[in-house]
Amino acid sequence: MLFKETMQEVKLYQDIVNEGLRNIKFPEEPTDLYEPIQYLLSIGGKRLRPALTLLSAEMFDCEAHAALPTAMAVEIFHNFSLMHDDIMDKAPLRRGEATVHEKWGTNTAILSGDFMLIQSYQFISRNESSVLPSLLSVFNRIAAEVCMGQQFDMNFEKSNNINITDYIEMIRLKTAVLIGASLQLGAIVAKTDDTNAKLLYQCGENLGIAFQLQDDLLDVFGDSAKFGKQIGGDILENKKTFLLLKALELAEEEDKIELISWLNKKEYKPVEKISSIVNLYNKLNIQSYIKDEMKHYTDIAFSALNEIPIAEKKKEPLRRLAETLLVRNQ
Amino acid sequence: MLFKETMQEVKLYQDIVNEGLRNIKFPEEPTDLYEPIQYLLSIGGKRLRPALTLLSAEMFDCEAHAALPTAMAVEIFHNFSLMHDDIMDKAPLRRGEATVHEKWGTNTAILSGDFMLIQSYQFISRNESSVLPSLLSVFNRIAAEVCMGQQFDMNFEKSNNINITDYIEMIRLKTAVLIGASLQLGAIVAKTDDTNAKLLYQCGENLGIAFQLQDDLLDVFGDSAKFGKQIGGDILENKKTFLLLKALELAEEEDKIELISWLNKKEYKPVEKISSIVNLYNKLNIQSYIKDEMKHYTDIAFSALNEIPIAEKKKEPLRRLAETLLVRNQ
Repeated sequence: MLFKETMQEVKLYQDIVNEGLRNIKFPEEPTDLYEPIQYLLSIGGKRLRPALTLLSAEMFDCEAHAALPTAMAVEIFHNFSLMHDDIMDKAPLRRGEATVHEKWGTNTAILSGDFMLIQSYQFISRNESSVLPSLLSVFNRIAAEVCMGQQFDMNFEKSNNINITDYIEMIRLKTAVLIGASLQLGAIVAKTDDTNAKLLYQCGENLGIAFQLQDDLLDVFGDSAKFGKQIGGDILENKKTFLLLKALELAEEEDKIELISWLNKKEYKPVEKISSIVNLYNKLNIQSYIKDEMKHYTDIAFSALNEIPIAEKKKEPLRRLAETLLVRNQ
Repeated sequence: MLFKETMQEVKLYQDIVNEGLRNIKFPEEPTDLYEPIQYLLSIGGKRLRPALTLLSAEMFDCEAHAALPTAMAVEIFHNFSLMHDDIMDKAPLRRGEATVHEKWGTNTAILSGDFMLIQSYQFISRNESSVLPSLLSVFNRIAAEVCMGQQFDMNFEKSNNINITDYIEMIRLKTAVLIGASLQLGAIVAKTDDTNAKLLYQCGENLGIAFQLQDDLLDVFGDSAKFGKQIGGDILENKKTFLLLKALELAEEEDKIELISWLNKKEYKPVEKISSIVNLYNKLNIQSYIKDEMKHYTDIAFSALNEIPIAEKKKEPLRRLAETLLVRNQ
């Protein structure tokens, strides 16, 4: 009931965003530049970030449509970063479909991605001049941070010296700051005061960290049908998630030796590697650590939301959405 | 004398820009993201575009330093486009040094380039809010156009159906609009009226086309020592420049057969290919056509400059710089 109601609300926002995205006017030529953009925007995506922007504008009594250009900027920026990250990560699939660089080649994915980054600024610039400096200040900062996050992520793959603090900082930059900004930008469009907008940023940034930790958790302990991904993918890739880093921190003696030997093994049966590492995670009680960590960030997020001096009723949609997203598969 | 005096003026602008670039504050980490940026900005470059921005601000009585953030945005944007174009063009060298993707790999060149594009917006955003919407409107437009120009350029390489109109439109987008914007943005910072700023844009765009045509000319007929590039490089690459397209348009019978056979030849002595094609260009009088075309665009540029209702004396630095650049090797 709660879930259904929330999802209906979110669907309204998604529809507004999807209509906005469908109506983007591209120049006639060169089509090679725009086709990949229309493709990536059309193969799905939950539109969570732009929905947060619209929802946050409404929280401060601004009509959702007035925040649409900003919401679109957020979604286009997010897709720009996916297009370029997929090249760097050599990812063959995105949302179950071929990635742009697989379909059209790396050069196209670079240039169309560049174009999307510029487009995101074009949409931000559609706002009235009184809010433009604040919007740009947030957008410029988080855009740079998302690049920093991607660089840290790539560096971490090559390093054996990553701890949980490093990891949290990486996911904060790569994922969470954009969730925070999605809310903050909507609040700025709604012309609420700076303090409220910053509290919403904090709320979103901390929710973003909790969402990413939940993704780490679900990759191993989730229901593959609901999660929409192969279970254990992170384990097979030796991905340095919270789970693995915590296990490396806690494991002792034979457990540590076993864990490291799995990480170094070149040939193995995938099911065997997954089940052995999951057994170790269970033995070390990793699930409870990650859930505590998620609770820590969720608590900060909701405290920030609580501090915003507006009627509780107005905060309900965000609170419900966050709670729905945080328990979606458990 | 004229040359020396102009170059001294330009050097003052270059010094301001270079100092600004040296003083950019980068976050401490991740250094992998910033090193390639500092590298590309440090291996030279004439700083022509930011010099135009400073010069144009001064033309309208605005102190050059007040336009420095905007000038830096222009230069950083230009270097972003070089970093990404060099990946797409598989270029091993830039300004005589290894390109970023050669030195650090494609992923680094993609991500550091993205960071520079964002940085260019950070510098634009340092302007006061009264001029920000106009600056963004110009910057957003030309940034998108530069991407379009690069896409056309890549498409043209694969096409045998390009005419001179297509070519001029491609170099307009890829090169000239940024020259135009460099002047227009400086004028906007100086708070001159919209008409003057647009006239300066026209001046710059048309000069930009003339500069590129001159580059085509010098690649074949220039003095390699002064030009700083291998003579005939475009000929060896079968690059569809104004010279080649005009020759293909004008050549008849045996000349056309000879030209096309050179373009299709897989094995040849470079000197022989260059001298044969140069002979054809001379026979067809291609130099006079390209010089007429340059004059056409230069005339439009100077007419636009003439229309700006300010004292002639204030226009002198731009006029002198343009004339110096347009005759630098002839």
